[in-house]
Amino acid sequence: MSGPVARLANIKLGGASQPDSSSAAAQASNNANNVPSADLGLIGLAVMGQNLILNMADNGFTICAYNRTVSKVDHFLENEAKGKSIVGAHDDKEFISKLKSPRRIMLLVQAGKAVDEWIQRLLPLLDEGDIIIDGGNSHFPDSNRRTKELAAKKIRFVGSGVSGGEEGARYGPSLMPGGNEEAWPYIKDIFQAIAAKSDGEACCEWVGDEGAGHYVKMVHNGIEYGDMQLICEAYDIMKRGLGLSSKEIGDVFAKWNKGVLDSFLIEITRDILYFNDDDGTPLVDKILDKAGQKGTGKWTAINALDLGMPVTLIAEAVLARCLSGIKDERALASTKLRYVARGSGKFEGNKEQFLEDLEQALYASKIISYAQGFMLMQEAAREFNWKLNKPSIALMWRGGCIIRSVFLKDITSAYRNEPELKNLLFDNFFNDAIHKAQPGWRAVVAQAAELGIPTPAFSTALSWFDGYRTKDLPANLLQAQRDYFGAHTFHIKPEFASDKYPEGKDIHVNWTGRGGNVSASTYQA
Amino acid sequence: MSGPVARLANIKLGGASQPDSSSAAAQASNNANNVPSADLGLIGLAVMGQNLILNMADNGFTICAYNRTVSKVDHFLENEAKGKSIVGAHDDKEFISKLKSPRRIMLLVQAGKAVDEWIQRLLPLLDEGDIIIDGGNSHFPDSNRRTKELAAKKIRFVGSGVSGGEEGARYGPSLMPGGNEEAWPYIKDIFQAIAAKSDGEACCEWVGDEGAGHYVKMVHNGIEYGDMQLICEAYDIMKRGLGLSSKEIGDVFAKWNKGVLDSFLIEITRDILYFNDDDGTPLVDKILDKAGQKGTGKWTAINALDLGMPVTLIAEAVLARCLSGIKDERALASTKLRYVARGSGKFEGNKEQFLEDLEQALYASKIISYAQGFMLMQEAAREFNWKLNKPSIALMWRGGCIIRSVFLKDITSAYRNEPELKNLLFDNFFNDAIHKAQPGWRAVVAQAAELGIPTPAFSTALSWFDGYRTKDLPANLLQAQRDYFGAHTFHIKPEFASDKYPEGKDIHVNWTGRGGNVSASTYQA
Repeated sequence: MSGPVARLANIKLGGASQPDSSSAAAQASNNANNVPSADLGLIGLAVMGQNLILNMADNGFTICAYNRTVSKVDHFLENEAKGKSIVGAHDDKEFISKLKSPRRIMLLVQAGKAVDEWIQRLLPLLDEGDIIIDGGNSHFPDSNRRTKELAAKKIRFVGSGVSGGEEGARYGPSLMPGGNEEAWPYIKDIFQAIAAKSDGEACCEWVGDEGAGHYVKMVHNGIEYGDMQLICEAYDIMKRGLGLSSKEIGDVFAKWNKGVLDSFLIEITRDILYFNDDDGTPLVDKILDKAGQKGTGKWTAINALDLGMPVTLIAEAVLARCLSGIKDERALASTKLRYVARGSGKFEGNKEQFLEDLEQALYASKIISYAQGFMLMQEAAREFNWKLNKPSIALMWRGGCIIRSVFLKDITSAYRNEPELKNLLFDNFFNDAIHKAQPGWRAVVAQAAELGIPTPAFSTALSWFDGYRTKDLPANLLQAQRDYFGAHTFHIKPEFASDKYPEGKDIHVNWTGRGGNVSASTYQA
Repeated sequence: MSGPVARLANIKLGGASQPDSSSAAAQASNNANNVPSADLGLIGLAVMGQNLILNMADNGFTICAYNRTVSKVDHFLENEAKGKSIVGAHDDKEFISKLKSPRRIMLLVQAGKAVDEWIQRLLPLLDEGDIIIDGGNSHFPDSNRRTKELAAKKIRFVGSGVSGGEEGARYGPSLMPGGNEEAWPYIKDIFQAIAAKSDGEACCEWVGDEGAGHYVKMVHNGIEYGDMQLICEAYDIMKRGLGLSSKEIGDVFAKWNKGVLDSFLIEITRDILYFNDDDGTPLVDKILDKAGQKGTGKWTAINALDLGMPVTLIAEAVLARCLSGIKDERALASTKLRYVARGSGKFEGNKEQFLEDLEQALYASKIISYAQGFMLMQEAAREFNWKLNKPSIALMWRGGCIIRSVFLKDITSAYRNEPELKNLLFDNFFNDAIHKAQPGWRAVVAQAAELGIPTPAFSTALSWFDGYRTKDLPANLLQAQRDYFGAHTFHIKPEFASDKYPEGKDIHVNWTGRGGNVSASTYQA
């Protein structure tokens, strides 16, 4: 089994020494007559697939390009792929024959049926130990299933999250591979070579079993929803609450991008706010405020509900997109519902101070969102019995992807210091940060409520924080209500346990004195 | 087809004239030898099933009781059912033979597999036009499926929500039947006779097609989650924020129960807060603050996400239960995370005023929750192509069920005044109410943020309201971000449409000047 790895390693070394592209092309051409020459075969020549191939070729690997509509292969070979270590195939047999053993086949096709169809189509042509990698945006339960089904056929399946969009795919994506870990030694060199680098480290590590790679990608996208919503709330507060211009708001984001919030999304927000239309006014003001949501953000929120994990910030971010989506109804509502408050509705405090508070509110809410996301992944690992490589997750997100940030460097450190860290908020760095941020965060949430600016994500983050740090929540009353109207029983707090109310027992009380039925399994006090 | 209805009507008239129970028992006994005598057969003799049978018998109907474990039938006949118009069956054939035509069979068995198993078991014994009613807590997609499958076999299926717990079942539940509307004339008399009454009207009407009955019951339960969470937040603010005793908080709820919040849940909250343990201290303080969530509340939130509807309050209520569930982690967190704010953390305002504000905050948040719930049902009707009887939904919830309240009378009026009401907030009564409540509501949300008391439901309701009444949300920035990093394109606001940026077209802008790939289907500005 070390043979192919060694061969691959050699080629990779060649890649590292930067062969000129004409010799790579010559090599690719020499091997055109069905001699297995390709380190990896990639199916699906839309932009993402093409860019990943070009990225792999730039790193010295020989790739065989293939596509359902075969004409696309030739077009690609004659244009973008010209002069690179890229070969093509025109039918399944040719494709398979060009791949070195064990074959590494990566699918960049539409998630869902197309992935299963390609797997079924390829299966009869494969040998034991061959590897199929699904690099699409698949839902993790599908990857769970495919890992098991293919393992039973001695084929190694990898479901890999790929983040960073088209540019990431071309010059360095964040890659999150999971599935059959036996495959990892055979794909590690290629994956880590093409991945983004952060402080010299590849933003790609083995994530965990079965659908863990796609799961982590899903949570990544959910967190991306959250980050974007938080930025939008800050923007809205500055625009409508403080009355700042787009240019002024751009200046604030530019400043924030030099501090703890330094990140790709803050950077592009600055660029967007500075971008003027031909008439000299900010283009952003002309864009329709109607965001779609159908994908991974929604999956994350639904999975959190399924696992019973309080991932409130992503849920609110998804629902905020839903609210943005009913623009016509909002336009109608804006004529029927007006702002009423005791105050003037105008901000009357110190703007400089408030902008500092706002930075802290954004930062604190972001910490909560990531803490929730890691709690969710932790619970999923428990639920699905995955080994999950937590310190690497933050590392993978540090570069290449939409949520890349300095922040993720701090998270990486936190999990490297303590891989079994129970909660991100218990890490010293983030513990200090959340305590420092609190006063400003509270002020912003309170102020937004008074000013009438919606802050679903800031608010839910603060409520969650105040709930999470509370030993005794009001759910005692809720349990009493449920016992009152439905004899659903409750447990007693251990510190109040007695013979009458034993610890850990289902207790029912006759709250009204009017009697009522109690199931036999119930302890009746 | 009018025959059975007429017969049933006759029997119902008998019921209305209150026959003494011995003659009803004699009639039941006379018909014991497999002469069809029963108006309805009910399968599943757990408490809910038993109580529904007793309720039906009290209303003059003859019911055949049946159960998988047959010994339960005899036990029931010899005890609770003794002397009433209730017969029993000991095998499937006997059961079927005792039912008048068209047969009305109601299942009160566990949701899921057991329902399908009973349907399969009964099917060979049924005739065209017979009716199967599922009165369990089934998930609406199952009821969609069963309606269709049974219609193809000429059997009429009804999926009915039943609310009100054991006591409701016995003395007047809220019933929400949906499915095959052909069945309605044959079950209407029984259902409306046994249902709770509100101002003389039965809390039961035909809801709509297929799984609409179970759908409306699901949303009802979601709203119940929301109502309970709102009460818990008010309780927590009074307890920890204002430092009131349970007795004092009970007094506040007692007062609220005489105003706009007059409802079953407020009433029982008062009772609970007044209920002392043997040692004279409030029992509620000793109850473990750990609430479960696995059922219909979660389904509602997931369905809202699936339909893309911003039902934020129920979602937060479900997630608040999840947060309550991780009690051990909260206990640990309470030792590591402390409250920090600019203020003292003590309430320093006017308590009387604040309690009035709190009542308004609870009321306003409740209005938002119901508005969201009705939006969701409206969207589901559109999505699943159901006719949905909106004015009746509020009527059904007015009595018999956990969320029964004066409030629902106002909602009933709103939808009777305007059955096609676009949003509850557009009705004059609720429009006035939400405007009147706003100042106090804002003050409470702001104050809770400063005091460190979690108010996820109050806060999300306010953010939603402020978002809903906003014509231009900050999602314009979000769309710009998506176009920047992923070329996902955006639309232009109609008022800014031009030749360069046409209305309704997918527009992509090169935000950086660095170029980038754009899919062919994209309009490139």
